[in-house]
Amino acid sequence: MTTGINAGGLSPRQLANAIRALSMDAVQRANSGHPGAPMGMADIAEVLWNRHLRHNPGNPGWADRDRFVLSNGHGSMLLYSLLHLSGYALSLDELKRFRQLHSATPGHPELGYTPGVETTTGPLGQGLANAVGMALAEQTLAAQFNRPGHPIIDHHTYTFVGDGCLMEGVSHEVCSLAGTLELGKLIVFYDDNGISIDGEVEGWFSDNTPERFRAYGWQVIEAVDGHSAQAVDVAILQAKEETRRPTLICCKTTIGFGAPNKAGSHDCHGAPLGEAEIAAAREALDWPYAPFEIPADICSAWDSRERGAALEVQWQQRFESYAQAYPELAAELQRRLAGELPEGWTDQREQLLRQCQLAARTQATRKSSQQVLERLAPSMPELLGGSADLAPSNLTQWSGSLAVSSEQRAGNYIHYGVREFGMSAMMNGIALHGGFIPYGGTFLMFMEYARNAVRMAALMKIRSIFVYTHDSIGLGEDGPTHQPVEQLASLRQTPNLETWRPCDETETATAWCEALARKDGPTALVLSRQNLPALPRDAAQLAQIERGAYAVADCEGLPDLILLASGSEVALALTAGEQLAGQGIVVRVLSVPCIERFEQQPAEYRDALLPASVRARVAVEMARPESWHRYVGLDGEVVAMHGFGESAPAEILFEHFGFTVAAVVETAQRVLART
Amino acid sequence: MTTGINAGGLSPRQLANAIRALSMDAVQRANSGHPGAPMGMADIAEVLWNRHLRHNPGNPGWADRDRFVLSNGHGSMLLYSLLHLSGYALSLDELKRFRQLHSATPGHPELGYTPGVETTTGPLGQGLANAVGMALAEQTLAAQFNRPGHPIIDHHTYTFVGDGCLMEGVSHEVCSLAGTLELGKLIVFYDDNGISIDGEVEGWFSDNTPERFRAYGWQVIEAVDGHSAQAVDVAILQAKEETRRPTLICCKTTIGFGAPNKAGSHDCHGAPLGEAEIAAAREALDWPYAPFEIPADICSAWDSRERGAALEVQWQQRFESYAQAYPELAAELQRRLAGELPEGWTDQREQLLRQCQLAARTQATRKSSQQVLERLAPSMPELLGGSADLAPSNLTQWSGSLAVSSEQRAGNYIHYGVREFGMSAMMNGIALHGGFIPYGGTFLMFMEYARNAVRMAALMKIRSIFVYTHDSIGLGEDGPTHQPVEQLASLRQTPNLETWRPCDETETATAWCEALARKDGPTALVLSRQNLPALPRDAAQLAQIERGAYAVADCEGLPDLILLASGSEVALALTAGEQLAGQGIVVRVLSVPCIERFEQQPAEYRDALLPASVRARVAVEMARPESWHRYVGLDGEVVAMHGFGESAPAEILFEHFGFTVAAVVETAQRVLART
Repeated sequence: MTTGINAGGLSPRQLANAIRALSMDAVQRANSGHPGAPMGMADIAEVLWNRHLRHNPGNPGWADRDRFVLSNGHGSMLLYSLLHLSGYALSLDELKRFRQLHSATPGHPELGYTPGVETTTGPLGQGLANAVGMALAEQTLAAQFNRPGHPIIDHHTYTFVGDGCLMEGVSHEVCSLAGTLELGKLIVFYDDNGISIDGEVEGWFSDNTPERFRAYGWQVIEAVDGHSAQAVDVAILQAKEETRRPTLICCKTTIGFGAPNKAGSHDCHGAPLGEAEIAAAREALDWPYAPFEIPADICSAWDSRERGAALEVQWQQRFESYAQAYPELAAELQRRLAGELPEGWTDQREQLLRQCQLAARTQATRKSSQQVLERLAPSMPELLGGSADLAPSNLTQWSGSLAVSSEQRAGNYIHYGVREFGMSAMMNGIALHGGFIPYGGTFLMFMEYARNAVRMAALMKIRSIFVYTHDSIGLGEDGPTHQPVEQLASLRQTPNLETWRPCDETETATAWCEALARKDGPTALVLSRQNLPALPRDAAQLAQIERGAYAVADCEGLPDLILLASGSEVALALTAGEQLAGQGIVVRVLSVPCIERFEQQPAEYRDALLPASVRARVAVEMARPESWHRYVGLDGEVVAMHGFGESAPAEILFEHFGFTVAAVVETAQRVLART
Repeated sequence: MTTGINAGGLSPRQLANAIRALSMDAVQRANSGHPGAPMGMADIAEVLWNRHLRHNPGNPGWADRDRFVLSNGHGSMLLYSLLHLSGYALSLDELKRFRQLHSATPGHPELGYTPGVETTTGPLGQGLANAVGMALAEQTLAAQFNRPGHPIIDHHTYTFVGDGCLMEGVSHEVCSLAGTLELGKLIVFYDDNGISIDGEVEGWFSDNTPERFRAYGWQVIEAVDGHSAQAVDVAILQAKEETRRPTLICCKTTIGFGAPNKAGSHDCHGAPLGEAEIAAAREALDWPYAPFEIPADICSAWDSRERGAALEVQWQQRFESYAQAYPELAAELQRRLAGELPEGWTDQREQLLRQCQLAARTQATRKSSQQVLERLAPSMPELLGGSADLAPSNLTQWSGSLAVSSEQRAGNYIHYGVREFGMSAMMNGIALHGGFIPYGGTFLMFMEYARNAVRMAALMKIRSIFVYTHDSIGLGEDGPTHQPVEQLASLRQTPNLETWRPCDETETATAWCEALARKDGPTALVLSRQNLPALPRDAAQLAQIERGAYAVADCEGLPDLILLASGSEVALALTAGEQLAGQGIVVRVLSVPCIERFEQQPAEYRDALLPASVRARVAVEMARPESWHRYVGLDGEVVAMHGFGESAPAEILFEHFGFTVAAVVETAQRVLART
């Protein structure tokens, strides 16, 4: 669909210049920002947004809108200009407050700050990965819900990427997989301007990018003049015609196009142009208007509210006809798009926890995790699982898992391949798209390959569930490259991420339920490779797991000593506690599956578990101690890992590194002696 | 050079079967490990090691040896078999102790555990990245030191990679750059066996890998039969003939070759074959020997000690002739290969610190870092700098920086492009090769893209220097995607990594000097974007910086209150301390540029600074508080970041997030009131 806009005889270039003017003016006013990319990509953006993008500025949440991702997020003024001009609720005043505290126009596009921003970008390559996830979500959701004559989910995902995005490794991971999965409705615009921060990229980036993407199975449209509206339009039409392969449109552009002295140079990448250059650019662009002034005819030509509202109305009508033909499917789709858990969820959860507690199985928590999935997943088709090529180890597959492939698009499980970062950033894109709760597994150690995507999920407050197995030296022989030491503490430090390290099947089930029910942030599930015993619990304890910490063994009145532990060390702490109790010491043992959750509890709950007057405290965890100093203070101790692991059978390592009942008892006695 | 080995009429296959037998036997005995890759790549390895690899088993440290990297490190038994068979000091008994505590044969190859292991591998893709770094180091060192007729540095870098390595994003980053930099002596063997842990890779990895690598500018030798010694030999000869382009040799192999029932399946990837299958494999391979028994003729055919010693002797002779022609160059090369700092280093260091202290400049510590480089680098040509496309921001270039390129091979600065992970893992390879001290910059936030390479440097105890600028919300408008919060604490938790966060130029100079002088581990230098004032110091304080923590303001006798801070917050703590002192409170203020270093000090030093009886302690850092709980205990507080940052000018953010004198004073008063 090409809707040529020529109202008032305005040229595409004039429309694009509105972006250029707003971008250079806002950056100048903020005295900070990146004018180069917005000015370079303005012509491409104009064609895409005015002739192709199906969206409704009046409702940024319309489920079947095309998705647009600015992966080179430093060019945020491009996106803000587009949102403002096309009619989103983003005022000129907000553009004037670019990069100021609490404005809707932060330095990089931030989800939740600005209507129409689909994902937070800035960390290069990840916007592209989000876009691949969105396209995969679209394709999978369409396969699950569309019916003949009812293409109720049917939209494109467009993304702009720069040289930086394509140099980043994550671009390889996700574009390779996008080719394999034949995400034909993904259209990527490469801003090939030959410039990065260090200067002309040829000295460090000489890939034949078209050949690279053809090697991934993409359609590549080469050598498009990114400043020719006609050429860009033709390329987009060709991209939309291709339904099997994703498309890369390689656009030759000039960074900072329109700035007569700085265009084509890295000088205009990340700094204001300066008043003189802006004046010269106004002249060169024939843009005689004051800063932040957009003439009415240009405003009107850009305004997409009417067209957008009509598009959504058409879709609503299609949806109503779908709902008549398939009422249950329609209701289910609405539930899933709203991100609501299935009806009966609360009962199901309660039953699950009770059953786990009754079963009292000794098993690895990774196995418990799989069994929880076996119980919950049949009634939660929104679960879109996966693993970075460790399915048989992470146990992220369950009996109903069906691999998504180019032939089987309606699956519920992604074989992401050995691509931890790509997987995690794609999961974020899937969560952002809606209709799914993504979960994906790798070893806890290789969370590090994906570290920043986990952070981005937390920053964006989205429901990605990261399954991390093989969580300590307990994995044994694979040795220090695979044995996490600092990773657990690192996860816990990320704001808005909840990290659960359950000690048995019941805690694992609780952790999964909390992760699923949590709508405002991601969860990391940290699971053991080795078997762990089931703990006895009464109803009160069972109800307290979700509070993040609770007493698994307690005493009357104030304890002499408090032991704290998580995951595989809870049983060890309990046994040590029993020995100490046998010596007449009054002991409380806390299981702490989720520190972040515990920290959110009311002070009374926290103080009751950890009375200020009890200073003899010992924490036990086969990881770095930093998570625990806040609880043990200057008087207590942490039985922890201080260096790297070793390659040996797990039992030998527990002994070697001092994770034994004797060592915990000895530490407790030492702490008791000095407090 | 092809040295056909046919002693006793043994076929290449028979020689390769020794690897297969040792590998399946050792894995079986350990009841843990990966037989598939060693059995699949045995024929390739046999040809490479027996006909091409120039090494000396008697001296694994010979400077001009070819480097061999097993990037698919889970196939460690392949490497251990090769080392044992060719004559390294790795006994059969050690092979029998595969994956046992303190053996020389840990689960994955670990640097320092086994003679002949060039780098620790296991985290996929990074061995390949190390190899690219080694090849770059070879090429650069050769360009710096070789003279006409004296090719004193002249060796190849060979690496084995699996599907997993090529799916990982880091493979894209480093192979792209290897093409641009024309690392013609890098030869990569791709074990194209079509299998990964989840099964047949075609469902998740359908790249046209040859086309991809041609897009990087590589020579690609396609469709080599990895089980034909002849075909592999021809391919290696072709690879060695090419001097400009790196070479990828794509070898079609069968995983677990020789195991009649499990070969070709992921069943043999990561688990012992089992006794029955091993017996069947012995039959299929015509290998009638007992476990760990290698017949004498096969042993003797493999033994490369004599050949290796002769190779090194030839090189020694060449080196002697070089040393006669260029005595100063030869001495300098020997110094650099030994990793010794230049003569006069101690004086230079002392002078530098004194001058920084005198200059008393107010400036960003990233700027101080650049000025330190200006002072030190001219006399330290072993510094091989770089940045992941942030040179003008990281300020990692100095006036003598000369970019390495295919035309200018003797440079001292790498434009790594937007490739943080690739850069960091290549730096590790450069450090491992010897002759250089690599340093490389990015924003502290994007350390996360490279997180595991930083850990690997610490695990391997190598001298990589990571320069991380823009270290807090002090970077301002770029907002939360760029503002580190948890990254600093995360770095500090990695064992054997020293993280310095200096507060002014003198501390920055100390940090650089400590990083350079540290031979047994990496250092992270965490630097501000914004200006920081210079602190006054007496000689005693100047000398104490290297201890990681010291008093920048002190009192007579025991303080009422101790303030602790690092980096940009030290000045804030000092001002707050002055205000509190004005209220009659006896205050000590500690600058803590390096917690890890402070933790290594004798107890007397630590206790003197932080007397156990003084419980009123407040730490101030614009990062997560977890690093500081160990010092402030249950009674103190940390003025810290708890959530994510925001996009706004830095001064506004300091106010917004409570990093003000008033807030620190108020916190201190609260702490004093309750202790």
